[in-house]
Amino acid sequence: MLTPPVIDRVVRAALDEDAPWGDLTSEYLIPADSVATADLVAREAGVFSGGQVFAAAFALTDPRVDVELRVADGTPFSPGDVLASVTGPARAILTAERIGLNFAQRMSGVATVTARYVAEVAGTRARIVDTRKTTPGLRALERHAVRSGGGHNHRHSLSDAVMAKDNHLALLTRGGASVTEALIAAKARLPHTAHLEVEVDRLDQIEPVLAAGVGTIMLDNFSLADLQAGVAQVAGRATVEASGGVSLDTVGAIARTGVDVISVGALTHSARALDLGLDIRIDGS
Amino acid sequence: MLTPPVIDRVVRAALDEDAPWGDLTSEYLIPADSVATADLVAREAGVFSGGQVFAAAFALTDPRVDVELRVADGTPFSPGDVLASVTGPARAILTAERIGLNFAQRMSGVATVTARYVAEVAGTRARIVDTRKTTPGLRALERHAVRSGGGHNHRHSLSDAVMAKDNHLALLTRGGASVTEALIAAKARLPHTAHLEVEVDRLDQIEPVLAAGVGTIMLDNFSLADLQAGVAQVAGRATVEASGGVSLDTVGAIARTGVDVISVGALTHSARALDLGLDIRIDGS
Amino acid sequence: MLTPPVIDRVVRAALDEDAPWGDLTSEYLIPADSVATADLVAREAGVFSGGQVFAAAFALTDPRVDVELRVADGTPFSPGDVLASVTGPARAILTAERIGLNFAQRMSGVATVTARYVAEVAGTRARIVDTRKTTPGLRALERHAVRSGGGHNHRHSLSDAVMAKDNHLALLTRGGASVTEALIAAKARLPHTAHLEVEVDRLDQIEPVLAAGVGTIMLDNFSLADLQAGVAQVAGRATVEASGGVSLDTVGAIARTGVDVISVGALTHSARALDLGLDIRIDGS
Amino acid sequence: MLTPPVIDRVVRAALDEDAPWGDLTSEYLIPADSVATADLVAREAGVFSGGQVFAAAFALTDPRVDVELRVADGTPFSPGDVLASVTGPARAILTAERIGLNFAQRMSGVATVTARYVAEVAGTRARIVDTRKTTPGLRALERHAVRSGGGHNHRHSLSDAVMAKDNHLALLTRGGASVTEALIAAKARLPHTAHLEVEVDRLDQIEPVLAAGVGTIMLDNFSLADLQAGVAQVAGRATVEASGGVSLDTVGAIARTGVDVISVGALTHSARALDLGLDIRIDGS
Amino acid sequence: MLTPPVIDRVVRAALDEDAPWGDLTSEYLIPADSVATADLVAREAGVFSGGQVFAAAFALTDPRVDVELRVADGTPFSPGDVLASVTGPARAILTAERIGLNFAQRMSGVATVTARYVAEVAGTRARIVDTRKTTPGLRALERHAVRSGGGHNHRHSLSDAVMAKDNHLALLTRGGASVTEALIAAKARLPHTAHLEVEVDRLDQIEPVLAAGVGTIMLDNFSLADLQAGVAQVAGRATVEASGGVSLDTVGAIARTGVDVISVGALTHSARALDLGLDIRIDGS
Amino acid sequence: MLTPPVIDRVVRAALDEDAPWGDLTSEYLIPADSVATADLVAREAGVFSGGQVFAAAFALTDPRVDVELRVADGTPFSPGDVLASVTGPARAILTAERIGLNFAQRMSGVATVTARYVAEVAGTRARIVDTRKTTPGLRALERHAVRSGGGHNHRHSLSDAVMAKDNHLALLTRGGASVTEALIAAKARLPHTAHLEVEVDRLDQIEPVLAAGVGTIMLDNFSLADLQAGVAQVAGRATVEASGGVSLDTVGAIARTGVDVISVGALTHSARALDLGLDIRIDGS
Repeated sequence: MLTPPVIDRVVRAALDEDAPWGDLTSEYLIPADSVATADLVAREAGVFSGGQVFAAAFALTDPRVDVELRVADGTPFSPGDVLASVTGPARAILTAERIGLNFAQRMSGVATVTARYVAEVAGTRARIVDTRKTTPGLRALERHAVRSGGGHNHRHSLSDAVMAKDNHLALLTRGGASVTEALIAAKARLPHTAHLEVEVDRLDQIEPVLAAGVGTIMLDNFSLADLQAGVAQVAGRATVEASGGVSLDTVGAIARTGVDVISVGALTHSARALDLGLDIRIDGS
Repeated sequence: MLTPPVIDRVVRAALDEDAPWGDLTSEYLIPADSVATADLVAREAGVFSGGQVFAAAFALTDPRVDVELRVADGTPFSPGDVLASVTGPARAILTAERIGLNFAQRMSGVATVTARYVAEVAGTRARIVDTRKTTPGLRALERHAVRSGGGHNHRHSLSDAVMAKDNHLALLTRGGASVTEALIAAKARLPHTAHLEVEVDRLDQIEPVLAAGVGTIMLDNFSLADLQAGVAQVAGRATVEASGGVSLDTVGAIARTGVDVISVGALTHSARALDLGLDIRIDGS
Repeated sequence: MLTPPVIDRVVRAALDEDAPWGDLTSEYLIPADSVATADLVAREAGVFSGGQVFAAAFALTDPRVDVELRVADGTPFSPGDVLASVTGPARAILTAERIGLNFAQRMSGVATVTARYVAEVAGTRARIVDTRKTTPGLRALERHAVRSGGGHNHRHSLSDAVMAKDNHLALLTRGGASVTEALIAAKARLPHTAHLEVEVDRLDQIEPVLAAGVGTIMLDNFSLADLQAGVAQVAGRATVEASGGVSLDTVGAIARTGVDVISVGALTHSARALDLGLDIRIDGS
Repeated sequence: MLTPPVIDRVVRAALDEDAPWGDLTSEYLIPADSVATADLVAREAGVFSGGQVFAAAFALTDPRVDVELRVADGTPFSPGDVLASVTGPARAILTAERIGLNFAQRMSGVATVTARYVAEVAGTRARIVDTRKTTPGLRALERHAVRSGGGHNHRHSLSDAVMAKDNHLALLTRGGASVTEALIAAKARLPHTAHLEVEVDRLDQIEPVLAAGVGTIMLDNFSLADLQAGVAQVAGRATVEASGGVSLDTVGAIARTGVDVISVGALTHSARALDLGLDIRIDGS
Repeated sequence: MLTPPVIDRVVRAALDEDAPWGDLTSEYLIPADSVATADLVAREAGVFSGGQVFAAAFALTDPRVDVELRVADGTPFSPGDVLASVTGPARAILTAERIGLNFAQRMSGVATVTARYVAEVAGTRARIVDTRKTTPGLRALERHAVRSGGGHNHRHSLSDAVMAKDNHLALLTRGGASVTEALIAAKARLPHTAHLEVEVDRLDQIEPVLAAGVGTIMLDNFSLADLQAGVAQVAGRATVEASGGVSLDTVGAIARTGVDVISVGALTHSARALDLGLDIRIDGS
Repeated sequence: MLTPPVIDRVVRAALDEDAPWGDLTSEYLIPADSVATADLVAREAGVFSGGQVFAAAFALTDPRVDVELRVADGTPFSPGDVLASVTGPARAILTAERIGLNFAQRMSGVATVTARYVAEVAGTRARIVDTRKTTPGLRALERHAVRSGGGHNHRHSLSDAVMAKDNHLALLTRGGASVTEALIAAKARLPHTAHLEVEVDRLDQIEPVLAAGVGTIMLDNFSLADLQAGVAQVAGRATVEASGGVSLDTVGAIARTGVDVISVGALTHSARALDLGLDIRIDGS
């Protein structure tokens, strides 16, 4: 979730990175008593995310800056829409402008691409989820942006759910145990609240995994036909996640195979910043 | 620059974000004494960047992991090339895999797109530079990646150079002074080592700015014809930077107008992660 | 899990708390070149936990101190057993002694009481698990100690699993929805990897909860008869956790009702420090 | 002392430990606009401590939560007494509940056991003091709780007073100097504000120590008869501290030997959490 | 610049250093409800600096303390002048007194000595600038104090401008290149906003440096005659900085040689604390 | 004391302040494989302090730099003496040079002035001690430097000893109690290890303070005659500290009045940096 302490920590780090000993331009060129107002304006269409983070960039630079969010996170917008308004000391607004924009542009970029994936799977049972391919340091923000776009979240980190991939299974069964036996043995050690997800690469791997009782089975890089066969074989005994080869072109067909979850790394690892601008009006000028 | 303390801080934060209380999967499923080797393999062509950061992800997870970088940052590669090799405890390699990849993929993505821009301006006097539109928290890494791709860096932050834009000039001249007078007055206060760059939107703004003596004049959103006219007008009295409307399609023509510097936000704000993979071999399995 | 970064952070904080500007006694009374050896000796019987943390207290005070752990975490011991040996500069050993002991005593205290609970449920299907009633700042250590004693962990934090209690359900159903409907609606929003546990206070609440499909149902403060009836009613459709009124006197009977999990706050919130001592031998004295 | 910065740091760390990326249950199950009130209620008798820390747990989760402390730290209470009331957003109250309780239960546990020791020595000159056997990271809180229970504090850390034990003396006298000479030499180096306390194990060690002039002499593991003899021998030339073998059963007799100070590790190293509960009322439910 | 986050961080660290677990004297001797007022009074003449830092020392100790600054930073004052007034809880005022004074005394000391240097160069074109010989951890404060005294700042750090000294040049020309060639080659790599300053020790080194095009040429330890000759030789082609052998006795003559910048390490590395006192009035006492 | 963790923290902060994103000059002008050696050379006479801190500046910049300390802290030196030698990568040596010097110059400056005060009181019973008038953030370093110069330390902070001044006494006696009664009452609350020092301004205040039993009595701003009278009056019943009006001119006479301790703010608040230089030899150049 996007809690106030997380926003505070991330925004402070960004401000410190961008002005470790102040903004030379504002401080040497702008009178201390100048006041300005500014609008956050969309230059292209998209879905908004990051309003609280955008606001924090200004408030943490100078608490006298007032930020009014015009739309809630998750709202679609058109070019020219005003998404937020900012009023206060001109120095602070000019200093925080770039950082505020960097956050809003990235988060809205993630929300917008997520919304496109979600639209493609409308009418199916599939949910679009993110992955751990997030920007280092910004995971909580990007996962929030995925939800703003109508997507769902996968596990947050390595600490909160188990995902056994081929390499894990190879090691688990090294002593000669079958996959089924090995998974049952592992479950006996795992916290009872730890969701167990197992990745398979072929249809014939499904049954041994299900026999151990797992929460989710991930069908990795399956063809559409195999996905459909896999869904039929699982038959509700576990959540079915499709992964690999997912794009806006393919996601609709993947969803129609009946899978429950489709994980999309591109939601976060390659989303481009959306074009948002800050139109500043210097009062009285 | 990309100093060891910066790498250390950024990678620790990423590891902590991804495994605040450990990797459930590795710890519950993988024997503590398993050893593995893995190769960082390119799945598409590009320019490498982030070798030291990739290595740190493993070393900070477990100092017993040995990482051998096969290519230096800035090296072009083809699909299938092995960029680095990793050997050590299987648990640590599986735990650090995603974070190591996240960094290498993003940094190589930035280097690769930068190299494309640099190639487009070959034979001209123009250098390709980054902007402050970087990922919050990762500026030092992304600027390093820009250099890996053959680009140059712009100012690092608001603290180390002055960039006066239209809003700054509006405020600076509010008391009735001309732009020239106002800039001269500001220079009298500025540190003598602070580079002064001023942005102009029209050709007729060039002369008053140059009259004050500035280091760089930025021609923002100028047509190709106006850029050429601007370069002629400046005539070597300041560095000329072109900004706005720069893409791989337009950058060559912009460079051929004779500008010295072309700043490209897209190098960092929208670079997609490059497709690199970690091929893991479990020893003895 | 008890990862090296967590140990490092917790031990550094403890050392800093105990000697913010050094150990007056060692530095003013002990020659810098004195060397000592010391044994960590059990003064009562128990189960060991915290070996790595104990070792870190000395190593972080002075890397020249060598700590040899004689027994692994989870090992039962008798009075007089030597659990670890320490050799190195006398100043550092005397400085780190108390902090090393504080950690080993507390963690072994938790492991020992856990082992008693585990022994009481031997032969049943029940596992003993901890709760969130841990010492602030030391959760990862105390959960490790629970595992050292043969127990299992519950969810680590509010971020990694859902536990809906009476107050949550009251709010969830406020709009008029039934518990079943409300839980199904919530599940549609929850990450698919989030384990859903729901607490019930009466037998008649079980069926509506199970109808929604949950991972674990917690029977809170049930009589033994009701626990038995509850287990029968659930009939394997969810993990059954017993909570409330659990003590060494009652835990065996609770386990024999057939529940899967018994959570015991006393493992961590009231474990006393085990009596371990450090017997120091000053070399040559 | 328990300063606001210390409370702030400790409580933030605890909240971060318990909800690194938010409270899944509250955020997915509780409407954002739900409001609740709750009472901190005693389930057993004791002495209250930790009111400010309890309040901080809620205030740092959401500043809109209002906490009214009904009793001051140090107040005895009976089962059923309401110690504090909390009103505000239901999500925040449910999120902070456990952490607020963890602190109040532990600190009140320490205060309560301290008060029992203090009661046992009523009418004597002895004060009950804590030791460095505190919970790592929570020393300032536990020392405050000791004062809430009517106890006094010993030195806070290794940095603020000297305590020479047998090992220190062995090293100090290694060159052949007598204990008296060695202590006098050490005093010549020590800051004049550094209190010097020396531990002795036998009556015949008292005179050589006193001859050097010390602030406190600690009689470690003395029999009652020897304690009485020791007090007589010291005859007011130093503060006399008794240590070792102190329990609720023995502390009264120890105090009646005439010692000034009795240090009790059990005040902090083994105090159990007191049973306090938070009774939540969902408004309108 | 002296931004609020920098003030906050530096003052918190100082308070934590001076009272890690509270102020024993205030807390044990002063009633919690005592109120006091106090004046910051000059005991000698000088120039004020550090008002905001002085205020933060009290506000961060207890937000109920009210600090009224009577003079702005940069204001000259005479003995007996009241520079600020403080009102609030007596405990907090007594606790924060020393830290508040430590900052105000040091910063005013720097401002005062700077003002003396500035006065000596009145009527010349020379500006007085600081160096990197600042107190570790307090650079932003000391640079602010230099500006309070009428001085200017040099580069803030190694990261924001280039200063090539003899050792750098020796290495740069090791391959056989001339200084001119080597500097031109280096400029081709440097960010275009990085100011390039080069130090020379003799007049004959000036021309090769200027031939490369540099922003500033530093004449290090030149005689007055050579400074004058150097200024004539540079003839406006670069900013001329004089360095070395600068004292209050020599600075006037140096300035009159026509240099643009005179850097003075003594502004910060050896400024003594100015004598300011806090006169406390205990209300009602 | 000057512990390794304190050195590490202070030096890292200084390096980060001086090169937040690297040293432009070294990195752009110096080849990565250049190696250099350098000597820390005294340019004036003094007493050395800060060897470990000087070494850490280089080691933390690049662990490959080797620093050999030629003299121990506390050693007097003459102009031209080599105090330490440094060998390693030229980039790192040039980057760390200024920070290493800043620390060594300041600490040696403090040690040198301290040694002068100590020499002035030779043959008397008086010790020279520091005050809390230290540089914010550098207290542990400056106190170490005082000891290097032969001085002693006063209390480290507000947390480790009590110092009651006039304002404290005014508040303490406000309810009508005498100073003696009030101090006795306060002692009953204070930790038994807390040294109690009380400041008096007149001879007639001595007896009431001594009647309460204090560790140290500070005679503040007494004339030499009154100091002598005060020492006679105290007659060994407490440590006598002289404070106020202490300079190199007066300290000898003050010491000869028979006081035990003379506190000198000037040791730290106004010590100038000693002139030490780093003579660098580029290998092979």
